[in-house]
Amino acid sequence: MIIDVHGHVSAPAELYSYKSNLLSSRGAHGRGGAGISDDQLRAALRAPNRSFGGVSHLDHLDEAGIDLQLISPRPFQMMHSESPAFLVEWFTAETNDTIARICSLEPDRFRGVCGLPQSMELEPAAWTQELRRCVQDLGFVGALLNTDPYEGLRQPPGLGDRFWYPVWEALCELDVPAMIHSAGCRPPARESYSLHFIQEETLAVAALLQSSVLTDFPELKIVVSHGGGAIPYQRGRFSAGAIRSGGRFEDQLRKLHFDTCLYTRDAIELLLGAVGVDRCVFGSEKPGTGSVRDPETGRWIDDIHLLVRDIESLDAGEQKAIFEANARALYRL
Amino acid sequence: MIIDVHGHVSAPAELYSYKSNLLSSRGAHGRGGAGISDDQLRAALRAPNRSFGGVSHLDHLDEAGIDLQLISPRPFQMMHSESPAFLVEWFTAETNDTIARICSLEPDRFRGVCGLPQSMELEPAAWTQELRRCVQDLGFVGALLNTDPYEGLRQPPGLGDRFWYPVWEALCELDVPAMIHSAGCRPPARESYSLHFIQEETLAVAALLQSSVLTDFPELKIVVSHGGGAIPYQRGRFSAGAIRSGGRFEDQLRKLHFDTCLYTRDAIELLLGAVGVDRCVFGSEKPGTGSVRDPETGRWIDDIHLLVRDIESLDAGEQKAIFEANARALYRL
Amino acid sequence: MIIDVHGHVSAPAELYSYKSNLLSSRGAHGRGGAGISDDQLRAALRAPNRSFGGVSHLDHLDEAGIDLQLISPRPFQMMHSESPAFLVEWFTAETNDTIARICSLEPDRFRGVCGLPQSMELEPAAWTQELRRCVQDLGFVGALLNTDPYEGLRQPPGLGDRFWYPVWEALCELDVPAMIHSAGCRPPARESYSLHFIQEETLAVAALLQSSVLTDFPELKIVVSHGGGAIPYQRGRFSAGAIRSGGRFEDQLRKLHFDTCLYTRDAIELLLGAVGVDRCVFGSEKPGTGSVRDPETGRWIDDIHLLVRDIESLDAGEQKAIFEANARALYRL
Amino acid sequence: MIIDVHGHVSAPAELYSYKSNLLSSRGAHGRGGAGISDDQLRAALRAPNRSFGGVSHLDHLDEAGIDLQLISPRPFQMMHSESPAFLVEWFTAETNDTIARICSLEPDRFRGVCGLPQSMELEPAAWTQELRRCVQDLGFVGALLNTDPYEGLRQPPGLGDRFWYPVWEALCELDVPAMIHSAGCRPPARESYSLHFIQEETLAVAALLQSSVLTDFPELKIVVSHGGGAIPYQRGRFSAGAIRSGGRFEDQLRKLHFDTCLYTRDAIELLLGAVGVDRCVFGSEKPGTGSVRDPETGRWIDDIHLLVRDIESLDAGEQKAIFEANARALYRL
Amino acid sequence: MIIDVHGHVSAPAELYSYKSNLLSSRGAHGRGGAGISDDQLRAALRAPNRSFGGVSHLDHLDEAGIDLQLISPRPFQMMHSESPAFLVEWFTAETNDTIARICSLEPDRFRGVCGLPQSMELEPAAWTQELRRCVQDLGFVGALLNTDPYEGLRQPPGLGDRFWYPVWEALCELDVPAMIHSAGCRPPARESYSLHFIQEETLAVAALLQSSVLTDFPELKIVVSHGGGAIPYQRGRFSAGAIRSGGRFEDQLRKLHFDTCLYTRDAIELLLGAVGVDRCVFGSEKPGTGSVRDPETGRWIDDIHLLVRDIESLDAGEQKAIFEANARALYRL
Amino acid sequence: MIIDVHGHVSAPAELYSYKSNLLSSRGAHGRGGAGISDDQLRAALRAPNRSFGGVSHLDHLDEAGIDLQLISPRPFQMMHSESPAFLVEWFTAETNDTIARICSLEPDRFRGVCGLPQSMELEPAAWTQELRRCVQDLGFVGALLNTDPYEGLRQPPGLGDRFWYPVWEALCELDVPAMIHSAGCRPPARESYSLHFIQEETLAVAALLQSSVLTDFPELKIVVSHGGGAIPYQRGRFSAGAIRSGGRFEDQLRKLHFDTCLYTRDAIELLLGAVGVDRCVFGSEKPGTGSVRDPETGRWIDDIHLLVRDIESLDAGEQKAIFEANARALYRL
Repeated sequence: MIIDVHGHVSAPAELYSYKSNLLSSRGAHGRGGAGISDDQLRAALRAPNRSFGGVSHLDHLDEAGIDLQLISPRPFQMMHSESPAFLVEWFTAETNDTIARICSLEPDRFRGVCGLPQSMELEPAAWTQELRRCVQDLGFVGALLNTDPYEGLRQPPGLGDRFWYPVWEALCELDVPAMIHSAGCRPPARESYSLHFIQEETLAVAALLQSSVLTDFPELKIVVSHGGGAIPYQRGRFSAGAIRSGGRFEDQLRKLHFDTCLYTRDAIELLLGAVGVDRCVFGSEKPGTGSVRDPETGRWIDDIHLLVRDIESLDAGEQKAIFEANARALYRL
Repeated sequence: MIIDVHGHVSAPAELYSYKSNLLSSRGAHGRGGAGISDDQLRAALRAPNRSFGGVSHLDHLDEAGIDLQLISPRPFQMMHSESPAFLVEWFTAETNDTIARICSLEPDRFRGVCGLPQSMELEPAAWTQELRRCVQDLGFVGALLNTDPYEGLRQPPGLGDRFWYPVWEALCELDVPAMIHSAGCRPPARESYSLHFIQEETLAVAALLQSSVLTDFPELKIVVSHGGGAIPYQRGRFSAGAIRSGGRFEDQLRKLHFDTCLYTRDAIELLLGAVGVDRCVFGSEKPGTGSVRDPETGRWIDDIHLLVRDIESLDAGEQKAIFEANARALYRL
Repeated sequence: MIIDVHGHVSAPAELYSYKSNLLSSRGAHGRGGAGISDDQLRAALRAPNRSFGGVSHLDHLDEAGIDLQLISPRPFQMMHSESPAFLVEWFTAETNDTIARICSLEPDRFRGVCGLPQSMELEPAAWTQELRRCVQDLGFVGALLNTDPYEGLRQPPGLGDRFWYPVWEALCELDVPAMIHSAGCRPPARESYSLHFIQEETLAVAALLQSSVLTDFPELKIVVSHGGGAIPYQRGRFSAGAIRSGGRFEDQLRKLHFDTCLYTRDAIELLLGAVGVDRCVFGSEKPGTGSVRDPETGRWIDDIHLLVRDIESLDAGEQKAIFEANARALYRL
Repeated sequence: MIIDVHGHVSAPAELYSYKSNLLSSRGAHGRGGAGISDDQLRAALRAPNRSFGGVSHLDHLDEAGIDLQLISPRPFQMMHSESPAFLVEWFTAETNDTIARICSLEPDRFRGVCGLPQSMELEPAAWTQELRRCVQDLGFVGALLNTDPYEGLRQPPGLGDRFWYPVWEALCELDVPAMIHSAGCRPPARESYSLHFIQEETLAVAALLQSSVLTDFPELKIVVSHGGGAIPYQRGRFSAGAIRSGGRFEDQLRKLHFDTCLYTRDAIELLLGAVGVDRCVFGSEKPGTGSVRDPETGRWIDDIHLLVRDIESLDAGEQKAIFEANARALYRL
Repeated sequence: MIIDVHGHVSAPAELYSYKSNLLSSRGAHGRGGAGISDDQLRAALRAPNRSFGGVSHLDHLDEAGIDLQLISPRPFQMMHSESPAFLVEWFTAETNDTIARICSLEPDRFRGVCGLPQSMELEPAAWTQELRRCVQDLGFVGALLNTDPYEGLRQPPGLGDRFWYPVWEALCELDVPAMIHSAGCRPPARESYSLHFIQEETLAVAALLQSSVLTDFPELKIVVSHGGGAIPYQRGRFSAGAIRSGGRFEDQLRKLHFDTCLYTRDAIELLLGAVGVDRCVFGSEKPGTGSVRDPETGRWIDDIHLLVRDIESLDAGEQKAIFEANARALYRL
Repeated sequence: MIIDVHGHVSAPAELYSYKSNLLSSRGAHGRGGAGISDDQLRAALRAPNRSFGGVSHLDHLDEAGIDLQLISPRPFQMMHSESPAFLVEWFTAETNDTIARICSLEPDRFRGVCGLPQSMELEPAAWTQELRRCVQDLGFVGALLNTDPYEGLRQPPGLGDRFWYPVWEALCELDVPAMIHSAGCRPPARESYSLHFIQEETLAVAALLQSSVLTDFPELKIVVSHGGGAIPYQRGRFSAGAIRSGGRFEDQLRKLHFDTCLYTRDAIELLLGAVGVDRCVFGSEKPGTGSVRDPETGRWIDDIHLLVRDIESLDAGEQKAIFEANARALYRL
């Protein structure tokens, strides 16, 4: 069985048309709604999609043998930097509601991971209201956490700052993991949103390990997307400092979890070696950026399950841990 | 026959989902396109629409007896203040192309009025490239002009400033009218986009009449939306200054054109009296903001043709001028 | 009998020389004073004035038959945006004191309406100290309220914001009306101070009617200058939204009062029709901007009393209501 | 005979009321004018003035035996930091015209020193148009130069910067001296305008002597007001640097002129010793800040002529140089 | 005997290399330390120094006969405007510790005057922690006070502002004097740090005398460096205002102390005459800016003791007061 | 033989004391110089250094068997973001001169790689003057290129922007490689300078490969420090986009060179596999951040040569290519 902790919702155009309307009206039409029917939701899962290589979301899962997928908002659509804050609140709630409806329509296939209305015009304590609603009322099993709600426009507080403590408290109280996953990235930042994900994950790991967050919240469960940004590859760079302080960076790294959403086998192997099999959960971000076929291998670029299976050094128990058991324990599935 | 100079395109959700994608990716996916089929275009014109009181765009026109409508982008969607500028260029072109396709599908019903990619990161001379493309290649008969491309974020140059001269030059050269119509309005401005239309029209008329624009460009054709904002109602206020300068404000006002897009009869009467029947063209903005039924009269609020017909003092020739002849002359239809 | 609720003080040059000195010294000379004698005050009322068409303030009133005028500071001189705040406080107090002295000199002719020291460096609660002093100590009967104390330099909180609540509270407690009347308007705003009046009145009406202010303060008395900006003319535009929300915009409008300070008969008629005779008070702003003779009619542009009398549909009771009774009730004269 | 190079115009209140009107209207009323009559001009010179210790301007001059005074605008009124620039241009011209009229009315008593419209929104080359007009058309003999046109709001280019070269060029071409004299001083700067004068003079001397201005313009004539700010007193501080560079600071200082507008004898003596009698011209700034009687001595504080006469070490020729001859040569009187 | 209240520490290069490292790492290496040995400290006092005219610190003191010198941080190195604030705290503490060690090595020669970590990111109350540590734990006898912690980047609160009250309170409580002495000066300010000293002293005296600080803290002991900036020379300018307010500026000035750090005899004489011998303490800033020989006299420019001795009007008791007694009383030595 | 392309200069404290003096005086003392003797230079190479684990620079090289090292400025000291620009120019030149002197003292051991005065107040064309001086006059073999001259204060132009073209032109003309290596990192950025290196390298590779730089400058030689930031590890992420565009990301990556400055064997192996042995050059950054002994292995963390030798899959030719031959070809040694 395969559990994929890193999937994003495939929603009808109406959801994003709704978002466009909110941004254009700046809320003058009131909250309203996307007005999506169940048929539209089903079609969005089953219709072949040009962005996904001409295949539907469910076909992708079936082909890869993904039995259960945790789905969250499409991160680049989350618009945390837009103003006024109620636009962010409205669109986040509409997106989470859409996810909840899809989970109801396909209860064996999907579980929800919610987005948070991370407007910097609000207090983090306000973000957690939506977290509570999603977990307690809608049955979600985790949340995305965007470490840069300004989306590249300016610098937010670092993840070690006390600014973020209300979020850690709520996550611990609800006992659900947060997946580190930034959203959009706007000029003047120099990177695309996709590269911004990587940069933010690198910053996030460094900030968490160099601060007292994980000491102050020993029960906190953090999953770092995309194999932890640059850190596992560059981890030696941090060893010297850790040794000088009398610690071991490898031990610190193991306080976090990482998904396998890397698209080459050598990178996944490096990750597993660096942080340990028990800290890794299978994540494919499928369908998405990687949903194109490699002309040389014929595989989908995001056939990460095949890359994992290709790793000969993993025994069956380790494969199962990565594909299923670790996620079950972490997300209490 | 009724020609309505003030209509906006009713496009499928995919156009605005495309816009949402551009804003979220900030262009990282490339220009791409909305991928709208002809069937989707037709459906968007013919499907009952909750925002329009449960009636379709074409049904609205049929019911009102509007034979020909000039359609332009939905102004509040134009996103002129977004960055980088190529997002504005891409979405403006996609919208104008969509309008052109609708005009091809319904050649007897619609003519195009284009939006311009009015990013302040571009020079006005760059905006006019799209104007030329729409008029010369796509057969459009006019353009919207947003007097506030910053959409409320900061103050743009006033309309009398030489900043705008490249636009006036291109309009004169192509011999098409510009309709003054602002777009969105963002905080910290205090008004909704809809009220911003009115405020900008007021500023536009004052700026044009107090500058040398209309002297420098005697052939320039300007249509002020929504009956000229506050100016006809407040025109007496400007009389004193004009008299002190040896002129008459009423004469100056008649250098501009105005549409009838006011929703009460007394206002339309005041407009006609203030600027003259020959300076007015019928505009309904139908379907749109006013597409709701008045529970007292049973009329649609935007049944502006009925309000005009209700004005007893207008003779048949004047009615025809307002409904058809003035628009034919102005837009060379 | 005619009561004119909209007059501004005609003060000697020394008041403005004093202001100039404050601005130049930024208060380094201390508060000092304008040093105006009673003779200078009388002369300023009685001397022919080039700005007023060569006629004195009192002659204007006599000619128009205005028996009692409420006089307030010349709004464009109020300099709310200047810094430090004590300059605004000193000049406001000096101006209000000047008005009080004129009312003492001409007790049958004038009543005072005070300006407030609306520096944004102060709290609104601080502004109301001057309001209390004027009403309680000096016998003033109302106040001007500038909705844009930044005078065009940046955006203030909208009138529906809780920022303004201390002002509403004080007005209700003292039971005096506030007249909405902005002050100066500085670059980068694009409009003259005179047009800024109109724009701010438009914003003010929209903000009050779309917020809970008038519900939270049912006793609050607001007079909107210059016939309400653009709103009565554009009121149909707001009908659709009100209907969608289950209300009637016309009913909401009637929670406010409006003065007749419009300079054409059709506009006054439209106003009376839109909001009702009982919501209107006579205001002429005489002498002022409109104090120039129309070469065609020979009338002063600001002979608003003649325009009102020209409206044949008004019966004697309605004329009296507009000219006297409504103001008596509103201002408790 | 006494020539006083440092006097400021005593103008009627109407000039500053005009300024106040310009600032309040931001020019919306057009340039207009102060509308001052010759009688008002004469009265302003002859009327006892509370600000001047209850004595008139001319009485002050008579009492002190000042035969000829160079009068310039009241510096603190010059409002160089106001916007838009045309306000500065209008008020500067009106002030200079007023000075010219006074010089015409009292041709034996006064010569004009002009103010410049030093808005930073204009180029310095534009400022010199008014300089040329005053010198060539109105017969002025010099100009004030404000080294801080931002009036404390932000930092201008230092006086050694090439920004100022067009001013030096015009002064040399016209062969008239510039008197260094700043204008107002606004928050956030921490000093009053009066202390700002001193600070700016200190900066000016340092900047001129540490740059190549006086080498590039060997004919340039600069008079530093108020005895050169802090420099003569602190000049030893600059000696070490000059010696390290192989020069002598005292020699450099003598490239400039200084007025005697210091209010204690020891300071004047220090000045004369530091820069030499031949570099000093008599300046009293009378009537002005110092026009109050010292209760101990009974003298006016600004009786600087008495302080100079008290210096026993000066012989008759030196006294004459300070009181008359140096000024005649410098200003070509 | 000569006590010099105005000396600055001569520290090894390692102290400033440490500072450079802090600025480059922004603290990423932790606080660390400069790692200076006692031998390096001694060498820095005894080694001939190119910046000091090729002579060592101690040789300078010996040659001038300075028996005891109060040493403080080199002001221009204090970097109060750097960020984050802990860099300022670390470097200030390291510098004060270095001074304390030198005082221990040469207990008969030096006493410490501390710098404060005047980052504007901290509260003034936080600055005084270091003051207490230095006075109470390290035996320092006074402190430098920088009136412009922004170092020219922007305007700080004026010295009369309540912002500074926690500093006054701590100084009074500890009964030690503060010497007014600014630090660096960065663009956009127009002056060098050395001229900035003078400007800030001028501002400081004016601010203190025009505020209620010296009334609120009658025990406060303030020493103004460099003879008080411009004030003694320009003091007549302030007389008029004081007389108008019923006071005498000379009396106010005598509430402060001044050092003699002026480099010409006439300036020192003026200072003594203006404020009185009893308000002056000997200060040489030796070795430092003035440590260069005058080719004409052969004296060091900073041989201020010779200038004082040259003043014939001072009797032996006055000389002793300036050179020793006043400092003993003020600093409780 | 081992050639190490990534070494930084070990300079005496005087160089950084000089820098500290420049920053404190903002250049008021003139350019001056660090005044370092040859003995001090030699001592800095040979003295045991606490920061380097108690061992000297040369001992480190000897122990590792590094025969030739390319040394450049310590990047975190380069202070590109300081102002005014001439400070950056002066310190850069002083540092490069110091490197040149060390290369002269130890001609068999060191070659110079220069820093550039990358102040954003200068044009990039101005930076290349120093590049030319170093290569043409001083014999340097390459340059560091800082991709973020603002050092975290704000966003610079991306590396694909035409802003950088003058640098590419000069590098090609001189035929020397640029090593991508950022400098300091200041708040508000969230990362230490060390992590900033990694983030900037990630951005640099993405920007170069997604722009036309490498097409426009086919001869350009770029070495990316620290194994290319995150890119080799995350390279699969970029495959999908490249395939969609018809290319292969792996081929694009091979247009660049990378050093081996990673501190774990698995990371170096991944790098070699991802970009090819022929694109890699040995770099140790020794002595530096990694100069601490691992308590488990007893090795220095920066014993990168041992990690390379541990890779069994590399044959002797490949080892030689990495350790020597590739660097010889790239740097023409």
